[in-house]
Amino acid sequence: MLVVLRLGHRIRRDKRITTHVALASRALGADGIFISGEKDAHLLEGVKDVTGRWGGDFFSEYRRDWKNIIKEYKEKNFMIVHLTFYGMPVQHTIGKLKGENLLVIVGGEKVPREVYYSADYNISVTNQPHSEISALAIFLHCYSDGRELEKNFENAKIRIIPREREKMVQKY
Amino acid sequence: MLVVLRLGHRIRRDKRITTHVALASRALGADGIFISGEKDAHLLEGVKDVTGRWGGDFFSEYRRDWKNIIKEYKEKNFMIVHLTFYGMPVQHTIGKLKGENLLVIVGGEKVPREVYYSADYNISVTNQPHSEISALAIFLHCYSDGRELEKNFENAKIRIIPREREKMVQKY
Repeated sequence: MLVVLRLGHRIRRDKRITTHVALASRALGADGIFISGEKDAHLLEGVKDVTGRWGGDFFSEYRRDWKNIIKEYKEKNFMIVHLTFYGMPVQHTIGKLKGENLLVIVGGEKVPREVYYSADYNISVTNQPHSEISALAIFLHCYSDGRELEKNFENAKIRIIPREREKMVQKY
Repeated sequence: MLVVLRLGHRIRRDKRITTHVALASRALGADGIFISGEKDAHLLEGVKDVTGRWGGDFFSEYRRDWKNIIKEYKEKNFMIVHLTFYGMPVQHTIGKLKGENLLVIVGGEKVPREVYYSADYNISVTNQPHSEISALAIFLHCYSDGRELEKNFENAKIRIIPREREKMVQKY
């Protein structure tokens, strides 16, 4: 299992970014996401709506108490991974994480020092500034060795049939 | 060479998303980005500022006439790739693109039909809804076989030294 924890969501500033974090988590094989920071019912509805239509059993849940989430998942023997551009390169650390259950923490603007210390691994996807969305995407891709791209989403009401030029949508 | 073309930027709605697209392009090995849609001087300044401080020679440029960009790059024998969740799976098509010069088109909200037809390849990173940022990230990662993660950025004024828990920044 792999669960994402998004810290420090701010409704006004982060709505689209956090939505993209959640949808990328789902599309790229995570089992669910906890969103912390400001409570944003509209965002959660949007993600649940995507899951309802596009299938699979991705969960998305607001939790203010992110410290407890970390504690709970440590107790369940999940490895705690924090994605940060200060951390150790993903390409050198991912080998230790494959096959493990992971809680993957994606920070917001200011990540408390405590997160760096409660994580088992602080991992960087390049040490350059880019985006928590691209960092998470590459992390998930490396973790699953590309198999996430073949994931099947059960009970979808809508599905794309890949085509070279046309848009082909199948509805059930 | 690999150049990104971002279509349909809208200042109010897309500022952060397009910034992330640009920074992910830079961090993950693209040579530059053209931004089309609404002209957003502030966004371009931000990206140029990152390049100035963090190094490398990534270019970022506003161009209204995206059709001409496609034409110019076709004439330079670049392959035109359009990332869309309607397209053919990246994992089955990337092999044809390695070693080629690419113009990679990242759409906005509504992509004109013409883009699908002027692209040599319409490529999907999963056929699920997620994010142009995560799609681009995985595309660039697959294109470079992970070597983009080792890219060196010349003439940086600031650099992160990867650490397991601390934040270590080196300034020049």
